[in-house]
Amino acid sequence: MTATILAVNCNTDAAMTAAIAAIGQAAASAGTSVVGVTPAWGPASAEGYVESLVTAAAVMDAVASHTAPFDAVVMAGFGEHGREGMRQLVRQPVVDITEAAVFAACLLGHRFGIVTTVDAAVAGIHDSLATMGMSGRCRSVRAAEVHVSAIADDVARTADALEATGRAVLADGADVLVLGCAGFAGLDAELERRLGVPVVDGVAAAVRFAEGLIALGKRTSTAGPYAPPRAGKAWRGPRLGALHAFT
Amino acid sequence: MTATILAVNCNTDAAMTAAIAAIGQAAASAGTSVVGVTPAWGPASAEGYVESLVTAAAVMDAVASHTAPFDAVVMAGFGEHGREGMRQLVRQPVVDITEAAVFAACLLGHRFGIVTTVDAAVAGIHDSLATMGMSGRCRSVRAAEVHVSAIADDVARTADALEATGRAVLADGADVLVLGCAGFAGLDAELERRLGVPVVDGVAAAVRFAEGLIALGKRTSTAGPYAPPRAGKAWRGPRLGALHAFT
Amino acid sequence: MTATILAVNCNTDAAMTAAIAAIGQAAASAGTSVVGVTPAWGPASAEGYVESLVTAAAVMDAVASHTAPFDAVVMAGFGEHGREGMRQLVRQPVVDITEAAVFAACLLGHRFGIVTTVDAAVAGIHDSLATMGMSGRCRSVRAAEVHVSAIADDVARTADALEATGRAVLADGADVLVLGCAGFAGLDAELERRLGVPVVDGVAAAVRFAEGLIALGKRTSTAGPYAPPRAGKAWRGPRLGALHAFT
Amino acid sequence: MTATILAVNCNTDAAMTAAIAAIGQAAASAGTSVVGVTPAWGPASAEGYVESLVTAAAVMDAVASHTAPFDAVVMAGFGEHGREGMRQLVRQPVVDITEAAVFAACLLGHRFGIVTTVDAAVAGIHDSLATMGMSGRCRSVRAAEVHVSAIADDVARTADALEATGRAVLADGADVLVLGCAGFAGLDAELERRLGVPVVDGVAAAVRFAEGLIALGKRTSTAGPYAPPRAGKAWRGPRLGALHAFT
Amino acid sequence: MTATILAVNCNTDAAMTAAIAAIGQAAASAGTSVVGVTPAWGPASAEGYVESLVTAAAVMDAVASHTAPFDAVVMAGFGEHGREGMRQLVRQPVVDITEAAVFAACLLGHRFGIVTTVDAAVAGIHDSLATMGMSGRCRSVRAAEVHVSAIADDVARTADALEATGRAVLADGADVLVLGCAGFAGLDAELERRLGVPVVDGVAAAVRFAEGLIALGKRTSTAGPYAPPRAGKAWRGPRLGALHAFT
Amino acid sequence: MTATILAVNCNTDAAMTAAIAAIGQAAASAGTSVVGVTPAWGPASAEGYVESLVTAAAVMDAVASHTAPFDAVVMAGFGEHGREGMRQLVRQPVVDITEAAVFAACLLGHRFGIVTTVDAAVAGIHDSLATMGMSGRCRSVRAAEVHVSAIADDVARTADALEATGRAVLADGADVLVLGCAGFAGLDAELERRLGVPVVDGVAAAVRFAEGLIALGKRTSTAGPYAPPRAGKAWRGPRLGALHAFT
Repeated sequence: MTATILAVNCNTDAAMTAAIAAIGQAAASAGTSVVGVTPAWGPASAEGYVESLVTAAAVMDAVASHTAPFDAVVMAGFGEHGREGMRQLVRQPVVDITEAAVFAACLLGHRFGIVTTVDAAVAGIHDSLATMGMSGRCRSVRAAEVHVSAIADDVARTADALEATGRAVLADGADVLVLGCAGFAGLDAELERRLGVPVVDGVAAAVRFAEGLIALGKRTSTAGPYAPPRAGKAWRGPRLGALHAFT
Repeated sequence: MTATILAVNCNTDAAMTAAIAAIGQAAASAGTSVVGVTPAWGPASAEGYVESLVTAAAVMDAVASHTAPFDAVVMAGFGEHGREGMRQLVRQPVVDITEAAVFAACLLGHRFGIVTTVDAAVAGIHDSLATMGMSGRCRSVRAAEVHVSAIADDVARTADALEATGRAVLADGADVLVLGCAGFAGLDAELERRLGVPVVDGVAAAVRFAEGLIALGKRTSTAGPYAPPRAGKAWRGPRLGALHAFT
Repeated sequence: MTATILAVNCNTDAAMTAAIAAIGQAAASAGTSVVGVTPAWGPASAEGYVESLVTAAAVMDAVASHTAPFDAVVMAGFGEHGREGMRQLVRQPVVDITEAAVFAACLLGHRFGIVTTVDAAVAGIHDSLATMGMSGRCRSVRAAEVHVSAIADDVARTADALEATGRAVLADGADVLVLGCAGFAGLDAELERRLGVPVVDGVAAAVRFAEGLIALGKRTSTAGPYAPPRAGKAWRGPRLGALHAFT
Repeated sequence: MTATILAVNCNTDAAMTAAIAAIGQAAASAGTSVVGVTPAWGPASAEGYVESLVTAAAVMDAVASHTAPFDAVVMAGFGEHGREGMRQLVRQPVVDITEAAVFAACLLGHRFGIVTTVDAAVAGIHDSLATMGMSGRCRSVRAAEVHVSAIADDVARTADALEATGRAVLADGADVLVLGCAGFAGLDAELERRLGVPVVDGVAAAVRFAEGLIALGKRTSTAGPYAPPRAGKAWRGPRLGALHAFT
Repeated sequence: MTATILAVNCNTDAAMTAAIAAIGQAAASAGTSVVGVTPAWGPASAEGYVESLVTAAAVMDAVASHTAPFDAVVMAGFGEHGREGMRQLVRQPVVDITEAAVFAACLLGHRFGIVTTVDAAVAGIHDSLATMGMSGRCRSVRAAEVHVSAIADDVARTADALEATGRAVLADGADVLVLGCAGFAGLDAELERRLGVPVVDGVAAAVRFAEGLIALGKRTSTAGPYAPPRAGKAWRGPRLGALHAFT
Repeated sequence: MTATILAVNCNTDAAMTAAIAAIGQAAASAGTSVVGVTPAWGPASAEGYVESLVTAAAVMDAVASHTAPFDAVVMAGFGEHGREGMRQLVRQPVVDITEAAVFAACLLGHRFGIVTTVDAAVAGIHDSLATMGMSGRCRSVRAAEVHVSAIADDVARTADALEATGRAVLADGADVLVLGCAGFAGLDAELERRLGVPVVDGVAAAVRFAEGLIALGKRTSTAGPYAPPRAGKAWRGPRLGALHAFT
């Protein structure tokens, strides 16, 4: 099977997109091409409601504006808004890394916990779990107090912070850990060594789940709220890439 | 008390903004000025996830770009995304018409039901109720199959459709009805006459609740996820009004 | 608008009724008259299930026996039983201060917490939240260990106890605080100063929400369980004021 | 074992008390004496919130005023308020027939349904299930449209109405039926014959469960909200039997 | 009334069966005979998912293979799987000690907590509460870290461990305690003395509740998923006692 | 990557095992070997609680007795008990087809529905969804009234029954369909053609998800209730294959 999976970063930091795509590519099967996509506009990181909602629009715009063919979309913003919109926008399978990480965690353990970046991101992650239906399997979401922009600056310090926060999450009753930021991708193996429990990186899991849906020939349903928007509606004001064409 | 309340339409249809502001003004106390705000960009109506997420960003942008002083924000998009972002953006009280309508309905009846425009909007309304915590009080959300753009074209036909769908919602067990679109504002009295139950228009309710919060001197909390975004983060690409300044 | 709102104390302490009415009047619009009502019988304070259930009947009796006209009822017993009965009894809007405080808190913050008087009152407050549908938005209910009768004796001590307990509630994850006793009315501003978060007094909020419902011309639904009791049923034994006439 | 169980009717219809006590006595072990208790004041039947709340106080008063010794209390008002208050009032085990019927039904089937008297009683029954924690096991609550006062007038007609409504409840997915009114006591065997499923009468079940708790020497907990009310609080106005002595 | 109740141990430790039957007999009415049943195969104790699922089959096999008549089944494995299967297997009432203990606890207190043997058993107990519908009434499940096989070796040490863990459960907010292992049967009175709250032993409670259902002439429903398995299905491989005959 | 996945049938029908393994193999990547495993004992099909609980033990026994190496286990019994036990038994990833189908469905649609074989299986499927945490995403579970043993006899008739029942499930509000029996495997494409919505076969999805977990190097957590059973516990009576060695 040859397949192209778009790994869409939620923020506009191209270096982070490259890192995400590399992690995704490393996790992929032979024959799969993981293509990083960076939104054309928006904040350098999404850490809270305002930024999350802006990136939801920007991420949809980035995919709407992507002209090359692709087989699936991986939404690489942990706990961010927008997966329902993306599913309305394209017929190819859409896998949010939040979903992929949580589903994988639930196959590996009984109760999971999440380590994310900063406190401002915690509430949005809980909202994402709630609409997913998975709040009941989650024991806690804790912030390591590492800003997204600082993750790559000092990987050792980031790993230390994740380890310490991860221990707190395990003490809350989790038996499997989820990395709650796309920027943490690639740190799962190191943390498994330190903590002795499965640690799930959503980017890697999402690429694999997307491959599975592609292989099975699945498409997003149009029978419910993911039916495409009614065409021909007027768009006012500055256009955002190609997104305006979908309303 | 003199107060200025922004009534922010979620779509870019200025005529609808004017209608919303008029309804809000009619519902307001003497001394309150209701100012309609139309987003500078976005679709002519929001009927589903893609459009709802775009308008969430556009509505935040519209308020971020509003330079005149105001005392509260009424978000006049029923069931649309974004109230959490708006609460992070401004310190003045923010009242989503979905919240106001639901809270008022719960003060007037035991179980409420919602009549909205089209099927595409139903899922988002359920999500809004879920994050509000009010799913358990709602008996059903039904679409009258009236597109937002067609509401004002034929008000009599709209009222007939709302009446018929309203009867179905009452048969589902509701004893109070919520108008599930800002475009329906002003039809509550007519429907109360036809259906014999309280019918709540969220725009009117939101204006009154906003006045109450202003009068009590309340401000949005900064102790949790509504604390303002961290300043000084880079914004890439075309700026959206003044929204970029908040990240 | 001229309007008369009954603020019904749940206990028989007339001094507390006067204090509640004064706070309500101070929170009201010009033109609104807040009339304190004290039940004709019952305990001096309601702090637990037995007393709460007695006051539910006594409060209904007090309103049934009130012969002067009024436009809305504010039930000024935090977390006490009986709002469903009151809604069956009168057609004017009924606002329980528990509801008003919780709804206001949910407009101002993401998760609220409640500070009440004594441990005996906590379970009933949780029940009230559950039937309201708002348990999921509440992070904790804690008692300041101040008996209702002692609140007014030493206001500084009361404020200190509320501050200390409020800090514990914020540490539980709340970002907005609710005063869980009508007797605490008027202490919200002082606590806001001390704690730096919005603090909601249900009496003030309820008066404002009641004004809103009056202004919008709303009446309690008779289409469900709030339809008036079937008339003409026999009443046996000593009559309670005028309540017997409603069965 | 010799034991005395108070079977407290919620309404003031002494004939119904006698019928309830007779059914309870028939269901009891040898050695158990079931004593009917009728409240000294209140409505002739409880069919909705106002009456339910009044009877909650009247039923507590009746037990507070009962001077002869007893070993347990059976609260014979289906879906009525007040079991938490009664548990605060006396240390002997308290069994609400709603609880007993539901627990028995859950031992006999997978999902239960309830047939009650009139629509006005349905909401209160749902509230009772919610505070009990058993909403999830209930498939539906339906009213047979038989007023409490009419049950005994024409037993054959009552049984026919219960059968028809029972079939609707089974069609809703229940596999065991609960009789949702103390006045239906004694009709379970006839309905089992007609419907071919277990039919639970709460009065009989409650007497048996109360006997079990007595035999095991159990007392109501004082470690939580059922600790007795603080003594010595002032009572104002006309006293209700002996209830005033408990506050 | 004369009645025979099978008290089926979940493990193959005959001494524990004897102890369970003795406790059950001591709790029973005159005229009731409690007959201990030990599975013919399986582990010496059930402390986790693997063992719980094995014992579910073994316990059904033991009852299927029991040739003498009986009137009810008490399943004496706390938190173990299998009550739904047993209800499909026999028409006599089936009472799981988990259900009996929880229902009794909810009649005696407001929120219960459970003390069980080892950590490995905790998750299964939570699952059992969830399918029962009673998770919301439970404040915590804690393990005393006493292996099932060690309970009887040193009863004083077991009681001390239960007391210490019981205090932790009460601190979690419970006001009534449930003994979370059939092997703890008989220790309830001692723990009540030490802790000052009601302590429920599921074996005793289940025997009493089973007697009640027998006395009321109740049978398990066949109208839903407890209808007997379709007969005549092929069974492959070694037969387990008489269980094969039921498929 | 080369990998061996055990596809364990829950019943003892070897022809069905072969069909399941073939479907799984067809869905697998090159390099993956799907090995069908049939329990050595148990019923020819699992259609209800008794049989489901027996197969839970038999399926664990089959894997415990499997001596050749493998990389993951796919449990091919839809809605059957036992995944928690299997996760305690082996360290390789375990994917229940119920989980895989539901997770895939939630990536493709907003609300899913399930078509299963017979009414007797419905309750167990609901239980499986509840412990998974996914009840809220499920709109309905309906039985096509096709016995497991009859599926293969007349595939056209089976497909017709699934289509008709599938339409009912879609009318309940689902926008994606799950095939609720391993025996239905392979019918998804045909049903997608007929119904126009995504139809998920759990066997195919589980094989792909298992491959993903293998590729990511994940193992089942031992930090919680999936830690291996304590070794050295006595086993009494006839041994079940090698399962006895795990207690």
